[in-house]
This record gives sequence, C-alpha cells and structure tokens, in this order.
Amino acid sequence: MKNKIYIVGMGPGREEMMTGEAAAALERADIIVGYTVYIDLLRKRFPDKELASTPMRREEERCRLCFAEAEKGKRVALVCSGDAGVYGLASLMYEMGKEYPQTELTVVPGVTAACSGAALLGAPLNHDFCVISLSDLLTPWETIEKRLEAAAKGDFAIALYNPSSHKRKDHLKRACDILLRYLEKERACGYVESVGREGERAETCTLGELRDMQVNMFTTVFIGNAGSEIIGGKLITKRGYGAENEGDIAVCGNDRGAQII
Amino acid sequence: MKNKIYIVGMGPGREEMMTGEAAAALERADIIVGYTVYIDLLRKRFPDKELASTPMRREEERCRLCFAEAEKGKRVALVCSGDAGVYGLASLMYEMGKEYPQTELTVVPGVTAACSGAALLGAPLNHDFCVISLSDLLTPWETIEKRLEAAAKGDFAIALYNPSSHKRKDHLKRACDILLRYLEKERACGYVESVGREGERAETCTLGELRDMQVNMFTTVFIGNAGSEIIGGKLITKRGYGAENEGDIAVCGNDRGAQII
Repeated sequence: MKNKIYIVGMGPGREEMMTGEAAAALERADIIVGYTVYIDLLRKRFPDKELASTPMRREEERCRLCFAEAEKGKRVALVCSGDAGVYGLASLMYEMGKEYPQTELTVVPGVTAACSGAALLGAPLNHDFCVISLSDLLTPWETIEKRLEAAAKGDFAIALYNPSSHKRKDHLKRACDILLRYLEKERACGYVESVGREGERAETCTLGELRDMQVNMFTTVFIGNAGSEIIGGKLITKRGYGAENEGDIAVCGNDRGAQII
Repeated sequence: MKNKIYIVGMGPGREEMMTGEAAAALERADIIVGYTVYIDLLRKRFPDKELASTPMRREEERCRLCFAEAEKGKRVALVCSGDAGVYGLASLMYEMGKEYPQTELTVVPGVTAACSGAALLGAPLNHDFCVISLSDLLTPWETIEKRLEAAAKGDFAIALYNPSSHKRKDHLKRACDILLRYLEKERACGYVESVGREGERAETCTLGELRDMQVNMFTTVFIGNAGSEIIGGKLITKRGYGAENEGDIAVCGNDRGAQII
C-alpha cells in the first residue's frame, strides 16, 4: 500500500470558493501541511487535526515534511492557495518525489487567481490568454521580459501574478513599460486585490494608468487584448472576432459536456 | 431592486469539482439555463427546479433567455462547464447586458480545463503559461497561428483547448507543425481526455508524437516549456530556473495568504 499525499489548491480565499473535492481532502487528511498563515487559519476549522507549517521561504522544507509524514503512514494534505499547479508546490513535490517511490502524489485542482480575479473584474480572459509572474526570484528578469514581449506580440489577454512585493516595488511599472512598446496606452486593463478576502476590490484602468499604479502582493493584474473593452465598469475580452451570433461547443472552451453525477 | 443572473462555472465534470459557491448558486436559482447536455444532467440533481436549455450553436439565444427570465424577477443561473470566463459565456453576457441595465451579472468562477487537466497530468503549467483555443469558428486561423508562434518564442508552457472537433480533425497537427518550427520534437507534452468524467485519461508524449495523435473534442493538450520534464509518467514544468532551494510567497504564485472564514 502506497503512502498518499494530496496537494490541494484551496482557491482564492473564502471556504465556499474551495471545491468539494479539496474540502474532502482536508477533512480526510491525518495531517495538513502548509505555509504558516494558512495553517493558522485552518486551525479554526480543524481544531483537532494535526497541522504543520513552515514559514514563507521554506518551501523545500515544507515538501520534505510532507514526505516524512507520509512515510509514517499518515494521509497528508499539502495546501496551497489558488491552484497548487499554478506557481504552487505541485511541481516541486513531483521533483522531490523521485526520492520517495513509495509515495503517491495527487493534485487536487483549485480556482487560480487568474480565474477568480477575472470573475470579479468581468470577463478579461474570455479568449486566448497568458499568465505571467513578475517575480524574478526563481526566474531571470530577461525571461520575464521576453514573455511580456511575446504576450504583447501575440495579442493575448494577460494575467500578471506577483506584480509587486516588499523587495520589488517597481516590477509592474517595468512590465508596463515593456508592454507599452507594443500596446497603446489606452489599452483596457484592470486589477483585483484580495480576492475572497477582506478588502476585496476590482478596478478597471488603462495600461497607461496601470503603469503608475501602486499595487500590493495580493493584487492580480489583467491586461486586455486588442478587442477588450470596459463595459459598465467591467473589463470584457470578447469570445471572438465578429460573428457574435455564431456559437459552438468548440468555441465555448471547456464547455465539454460536463457530467454531474 | 435589480434582477440577478449568476454565470456559473461548473468545473470539469464531477459535482465534487464544483466550488461550494457554484453549488449554492444553482441551489438558490429559480431557473437554471444552459446547454442541453448539462441541463439534462442537472435535471437528476434538481428534479423540481425550472430548467431551460438551448442547443449547442444557440449561445446568443441562451443568453437572451437568461435576461428575459431575469426580467420576470427570477433569480437565474447560467451554467458553463469549467470556468464561465474562459471561452465561456461571461463576456457575451456582459456585452448583451448593455441592453439590460436593470440586470446585475455575477460570475461565479470554476476550475477551468487547463487546471483540472494539469492536475491529472502532474504539473505542466507550474510556471508562466498560455491558453490557446484551436477553434477557428470565431477566430481567424491566422490569429491562432500568430499566438502559437508567440507562445513558442516566449517559452511558455501551453494548454490547447478545442484541439479537434467533427469539422476540424487536423487542427492539432497544424498547430504542432507551427510549434515544431521553434520547438524540438522531443519537447515534453501530454494530453488529458474527459476530465472528471467516465473515460478520464492522462497521457504524456513528445511534441513529435503529439503531432500524429488523434484527439477528440473532450481533450485538453499540454506542451511543456524548455525546462519541462516527464517524471514518473507525469508532465512537470519546474517553478523556476535552478535555485530550487529558494522559495518565496511571490514565487508561489497565488500563494497569497488565503483566508478561510
């Protein structure tokens, strides 16, 4: 019998924004491991469950802890906010998992900030889009710059994660300056703060305005494509180019005959 | 008092993959509107609720029906699979909403196929990524081609929606041929079929193999970035470039101090 670790995406914040599957994985776990802030919050919900946390910069340590607890035969849940596979710990767990062949990993998907933020802002990602993190801690800035250029040239709608942090206050400004080489300063944009948390806030603006915006690390930024519009205070990226009357399951993206059991 | 329409993302399939918020929106709705297939499935769960459906290609009609029902004072839920804001009906609803100022729209986010498919495949989108639909029904093929090129040049991980349909059997092959101008044929890739449904299946392969793969309209295709690897049958895109020991909340994407209330 294999040891089991569930890598669980908790969604943006509020418990109702978790999937039933994610909530069940936490319920069934013998131990829940995560970043200190989440574990403190989960303590209220699971007063009697074993909870273990490691601070912010100790992600490898946090993953090792999961494997160590799993090897004791415990059913482990590792929590990440949003989706564990979008800048989360899923890939690090699989890389470290090479050393633990007896442990089976399962990723439980969640609603990532691109989707939860988009919902608050209207429909900014309703056509092809890119997700780019402006954090250069694990990625050279040159790579981030190259991707911003590619996203602009490809006329993608864009969601920017980690537009700012204590150490990197000017990354959004630098990113906007790169985008402004290709996009007009009137390009429809928006940003969302603290989705699913106190102080939740969604605002639309132009790319020119975004450049001079002070955002925090709880902000997700959205840049529209060439066809995006601000309609009634919402940032809307159209599903297609003209032909609004035409619809098709193939267009309605993941509109794929979902099955409700 | 404004009329209310909830545009609800149901997630990939199984009811447990819906968020609590989405399930609650369906529970509270006076009428649920959607594509025939979903409505038939929802009928089992809500035998006594008013349900209305329109066939596949009648999306504008489906949206009009929502506004008409809302104007009667009913609380309406419009269901899309995955996330309603990713190739879903959210943007069309906001565009049509200009004609219905008395109706308030709320998008309830869901787990889109990029995230649910990625979870099954391992962690293919664990760094910057693009989502591109290969459907040319509402998008000129030239635009799709331009975006595939931009995604390849930007070294993004890529999720491809609608890689095939009855009428467009060769789109994945055509897309791979474009990517192969920039990417090596050994590039780590994978695909997922029928997430959350019967016949759910995840397979890894190379880009060269993907080119000759026959996929169906329930498939989501994943193309790794330059650093992606297949580890133990899973497609893994690393969180960064080297410096694996370093972790940071800014890197752990939407790892943003989620609040569990």
